[in-house]
Amino acid sequence: MNDKRAIGIFDSGLGGLTVMKEIRKALPGENIYYLGDTKHVPYGSKSAATVTRLSSSNIEYLLKQNVKLIVVACNTSSALSLADLKKIFRVPMVGVVEPGAAGAVKASVSGRIGVIGTTGTVGSGAYRKAVKKLLPGARVYSKACPLFVPLVEEGWWDKKITGEICAEYLSELRKHRVDTLVLGCTHYPFLKKAIGNVMKGATLIDSAYETAHAVRALLAQKGILNTSGRKPAYRFYVTDAPEKFKKLGSSFLRYGIEKVKLLNID
Amino acid sequence: MNDKRAIGIFDSGLGGLTVMKEIRKALPGENIYYLGDTKHVPYGSKSAATVTRLSSSNIEYLLKQNVKLIVVACNTSSALSLADLKKIFRVPMVGVVEPGAAGAVKASVSGRIGVIGTTGTVGSGAYRKAVKKLLPGARVYSKACPLFVPLVEEGWWDKKITGEICAEYLSELRKHRVDTLVLGCTHYPFLKKAIGNVMKGATLIDSAYETAHAVRALLAQKGILNTSGRKPAYRFYVTDAPEKFKKLGSSFLRYGIEKVKLLNID
Repeated sequence: MNDKRAIGIFDSGLGGLTVMKEIRKALPGENIYYLGDTKHVPYGSKSAATVTRLSSSNIEYLLKQNVKLIVVACNTSSALSLADLKKIFRVPMVGVVEPGAAGAVKASVSGRIGVIGTTGTVGSGAYRKAVKKLLPGARVYSKACPLFVPLVEEGWWDKKITGEICAEYLSELRKHRVDTLVLGCTHYPFLKKAIGNVMKGATLIDSAYETAHAVRALLAQKGILNTSGRKPAYRFYVTDAPEKFKKLGSSFLRYGIEKVKLLNID
Repeated sequence: MNDKRAIGIFDSGLGGLTVMKEIRKALPGENIYYLGDTKHVPYGSKSAATVTRLSSSNIEYLLKQNVKLIVVACNTSSALSLADLKKIFRVPMVGVVEPGAAGAVKASVSGRIGVIGTTGTVGSGAYRKAVKKLLPGARVYSKACPLFVPLVEEGWWDKKITGEICAEYLSELRKHRVDTLVLGCTHYPFLKKAIGNVMKGATLIDSAYETAHAVRALLAQKGILNTSGRKPAYRFYVTDAPEKFKKLGSSFLRYGIEKVKLLNID
């Protein structure tokens, strides 16, 4: 089957572009529409009710653009709202938490798994639940790292200070001797090197990569892959500050974003 | 004259509570209503049009509560929107930028003044303009410090890392030999010690303190001070996550916040 409809991705801002980047790699023939809710970024500190309402608005807009599948690229939204969103909408939906958890379970030998993310994601316990569902005997240790997102956005990816902040946040997880660490936030892959230096020997799980492969598997299973072989189209929508998105987003995606449409949704 | 109506303060979140704290000290007899737009925090990365629209909603709500004066406690909103807001509303209004700039001009001997704030505040050039208006020959050097807000919210006020991050951000301002530094963000007074260690010899200007005294002067000038001598009432409104506000806010304000009302404004 050939289904030319686009994949719809949304995130609270531009972090989800790391997920889009992996989806482009895994599915180079698919059209992709990306919506960044920059008027409400970040979702990490908001209540579950508000995150679900904002996520619903994003999905409604993408559905109007006739997408065939929704990727909830925001960890907070995946953690707090995905179960509710699946009840509200009938479109196939993939979050980032379950693929990340599955990747960790597959990689871990000792069953001692670490998870880092925003305060909202860690506080929800969603990764812990998803890991335990797959491997009930797993020991899951979590740590919220609220400085990592501004650190990435500041471009301080491999400064000396970055290493020290990583050491500070990750010291507990090292004590717990986790052999696998889930990067439970779309911004964190930019700190892979600094985190890897502190967590020597542990396997780092990039939820973006795992999610892209989950999306490919689901499209194949439903028989809705785009097999047209045509050059794919990418569209970008934001709810505020399109120029800033264009500039920072191009470096996140490693792709020159030319046009960003400003939406008036709430 | 005795005017028992409250002072209305708004901010994008809880940072403005540092302004409220100073107003309480300077005006212990005044009733104060505080609105934190926690659904849209932070304003620092949003466009001017969006910040003005959100600020207008906050002011409209406070006016319905019959306040006599509005304090724009958010630096970004003061920097980007105050001029427009003053055109829209007739209520007396005080922002944090002009008092902070006036305090710096008063304190500086060499006329070499530093300003630190969020990306939005620094990018707007509002402090520079306000300083130059009062002291045309001043040399103003600015630096955006986006890691400071999460650093404060993380509670890392005097860690070793905090000192290193301060040294990194402030090295240029040191080279420019500023003798006065404006803390142009409501969160920054919590880092006073770490910033002071790096900026040895410079006078740190706390906009919150300066603003409180500007509010007192304006109330006196308009003859609308509350001279009833009664115990003041404080009310708190937020647009999301009231429990989190209550907890973090009490430590910001050093006052036990008992009740926070959740608003549905947009």
